[in-house]
Amino acid sequence: MATTDQDDQLVTPWEVTAASQKGVDYDKLIKKFGSVKIEDSLIERIARVTGKPAHHLLRRGIIFSHRDVGMILDAYEKGKPFFLYTGRGPSSEAMHLGHLIPFVFTRYLQDVFDVPLVIQMTDDEKFLWKDMSVEEARRLASENAKDIIAFGFDKEKTFIFSDMDYIGSTPDFYKTILRVEKCVTVNQVKGIFGFNDSDCIGKISFPAIQAAPSFSCSFPQIFGGKKDIACLIPCAIDQDPYFRMTRDAAPRLGYPKPALLHSTFLPALQGAMTKMSASEASTSIYLTDSADDIRDKINKYAYSGGQSTVEEHRRVGGNVDVDVSYQYLTFFMEDDEKVEKIKKDYTSGAMLTGDLKKELISVVQKVVAEHQQRRQQVTDQMVQEFMTPRKLKYSY
Amino acid sequence: MATTDQDDQLVTPWEVTAASQKGVDYDKLIKKFGSVKIEDSLIERIARVTGKPAHHLLRRGIIFSHRDVGMILDAYEKGKPFFLYTGRGPSSEAMHLGHLIPFVFTRYLQDVFDVPLVIQMTDDEKFLWKDMSVEEARRLASENAKDIIAFGFDKEKTFIFSDMDYIGSTPDFYKTILRVEKCVTVNQVKGIFGFNDSDCIGKISFPAIQAAPSFSCSFPQIFGGKKDIACLIPCAIDQDPYFRMTRDAAPRLGYPKPALLHSTFLPALQGAMTKMSASEASTSIYLTDSADDIRDKINKYAYSGGQSTVEEHRRVGGNVDVDVSYQYLTFFMEDDEKVEKIKKDYTSGAMLTGDLKKELISVVQKVVAEHQQRRQQVTDQMVQEFMTPRKLKYSY
Repeated sequence: MATTDQDDQLVTPWEVTAASQKGVDYDKLIKKFGSVKIEDSLIERIARVTGKPAHHLLRRGIIFSHRDVGMILDAYEKGKPFFLYTGRGPSSEAMHLGHLIPFVFTRYLQDVFDVPLVIQMTDDEKFLWKDMSVEEARRLASENAKDIIAFGFDKEKTFIFSDMDYIGSTPDFYKTILRVEKCVTVNQVKGIFGFNDSDCIGKISFPAIQAAPSFSCSFPQIFGGKKDIACLIPCAIDQDPYFRMTRDAAPRLGYPKPALLHSTFLPALQGAMTKMSASEASTSIYLTDSADDIRDKINKYAYSGGQSTVEEHRRVGGNVDVDVSYQYLTFFMEDDEKVEKIKKDYTSGAMLTGDLKKELISVVQKVVAEHQQRRQQVTDQMVQEFMTPRKLKYSY
Repeated sequence: MATTDQDDQLVTPWEVTAASQKGVDYDKLIKKFGSVKIEDSLIERIARVTGKPAHHLLRRGIIFSHRDVGMILDAYEKGKPFFLYTGRGPSSEAMHLGHLIPFVFTRYLQDVFDVPLVIQMTDDEKFLWKDMSVEEARRLASENAKDIIAFGFDKEKTFIFSDMDYIGSTPDFYKTILRVEKCVTVNQVKGIFGFNDSDCIGKISFPAIQAAPSFSCSFPQIFGGKKDIACLIPCAIDQDPYFRMTRDAAPRLGYPKPALLHSTFLPALQGAMTKMSASEASTSIYLTDSADDIRDKINKYAYSGGQSTVEEHRRVGGNVDVDVSYQYLTFFMEDDEKVEKIKKDYTSGAMLTGDLKKELISVVQKVVAEHQQRRQQVTDQMVQEFMTPRKLKYSY
């Protein structure tokens, strides 16, 4: 299984465990997965090409790795089209802060490049993997779509689809899935995903369903049947195995390989040994949590890099490398100078853990409250509009 | 692989080889597959329940085995509905005489029971198994549908569908496939179908796609969402592995197990060691063959149970157990008395091989010419009508 590690670091689409409290060793992961570290020069190029400042998630190394983004930028500079593809497995009603990251970054990409975006809701995957009915998985796809719409995507540029519905409404999507299924063997998916013969046959073929939206021929209504529109996939690094498989299949199918931008994981409240998980309530801040919930969870659970007494903290200082509150600030506080000052003050001992948590609480309360306001305004009608297969504002 | 045999008899959905010139040992196959031999009492019951004479394919043991047909008849007698499901893998443009058998029998069942019929064209399967593009497999599905329509099915009672199109137009079908996929493991399909890890992932999950039409919830437009309508599947015995798997899954999904009626294979012209195969031209009489083709092929290739000289034949007689022309007559000549007389005369030596072949040639020429006439009248418009998902003449 290509995604396990000799030193106990484990990163798969279904499980993330780090070997130390500092979290996943991302440099090691880059080496193992064979992706490319994002250097300052690439970040500068993105800013230059788009004429907009690079997103703080890029500047702070949270979007840390990529595949072939240079080729996307080359094409973009020549005026050639590309599209964005990302997704979500609707495993529960309550999305959490960790789910927000790839979507916040995807929205930035859509804003600065002005390109179509397709968002796959893998309700079929969740049905196959979880103790959940078809109907419940489909319902969660629509519920989660409300949150995704609330992230601010432009309806004229964005198609959100449930696999169950979209496979059942677009023969070209199923045909693309079939083409991928034909050129991937059981051996390959066992090697890539660690499947075994006790797994159900649906799991074995599912990777083709996550692969297919990388190819523009899956969306005839958007791309008018063109099969050579390049694709850029912003996603968390644990999804990379799907797209390594996809990139391997692409040349054999005569399609362009999708490019990728990988994000790190938002750590669990308890520390960076694992990521925030929707199925373990105490590790997560949900997008449905109240201001009081947020305050209480951060105060109670957020792993601290501070010292055990005020006196010792003043003397030794705190450790931002393991402090979850500080980590979260790098994800959610946009003001670079303020983040830098907090890092300096906490490390020197001038700032106490309580004050750091207070900063985080106010930032997260604001992020979540604003999301809740926007989500309240998302109607079933809007969900239906975003999820209707249709032409977007682009012509090909 | 549950479908291989210790004594070299091999019957799988992809290969049929008998151990002797007498053809497949069907009694042994019944024992191995765990199905039930059709006894005279069942044939009499079918005639009694339908008020029509049993079909000659039933009377002559060509439809030789079943599963749970008694339950279908029980339900039918109580006025409860059921439906028929059969299918075709569109691997080539030219269907042959062997393909005709299950459809001739299916048409009889539709006529005498007056029930809905769904016919699956597994263009996805053929794409996955053969060196063939998605477009070619889909095209062959429509070409083959023309032949099937020419067999005389009633448009008000029959829905023919290409998997590629129907999966891509009906979420309820994909949802039923997913439910089957979730309760069948890789181990199971390896055991049933002999798949291995070098097979592509599409093959591994395909059995769920052939299973799903057994369940009425796959056809909401026909059955109005009812998931408990019983299903009877007439098919050649080599398709039984798919439906053993389906019957195993049914109770776990809360659906009724499909019942089955199995036919034997039409032997290849060269003899009953194998079945007629569309991909080996000299073994087959195609539905597109001319009267002269038919005469020449039967005269040249049809394996004879006669003796090497006329004198010896007159003295010893012919062997109908291995004579392909005689076997074909049992499939295609409806007149029981005439078949019986030919058997008697050929066995005694009174009838020579040339005369037997002459009888067969005229019967087959008539069957094929009539089919060609009917097929000429099948328009693209008719194909589209049969293949449009719609309500049939029944209400539920």
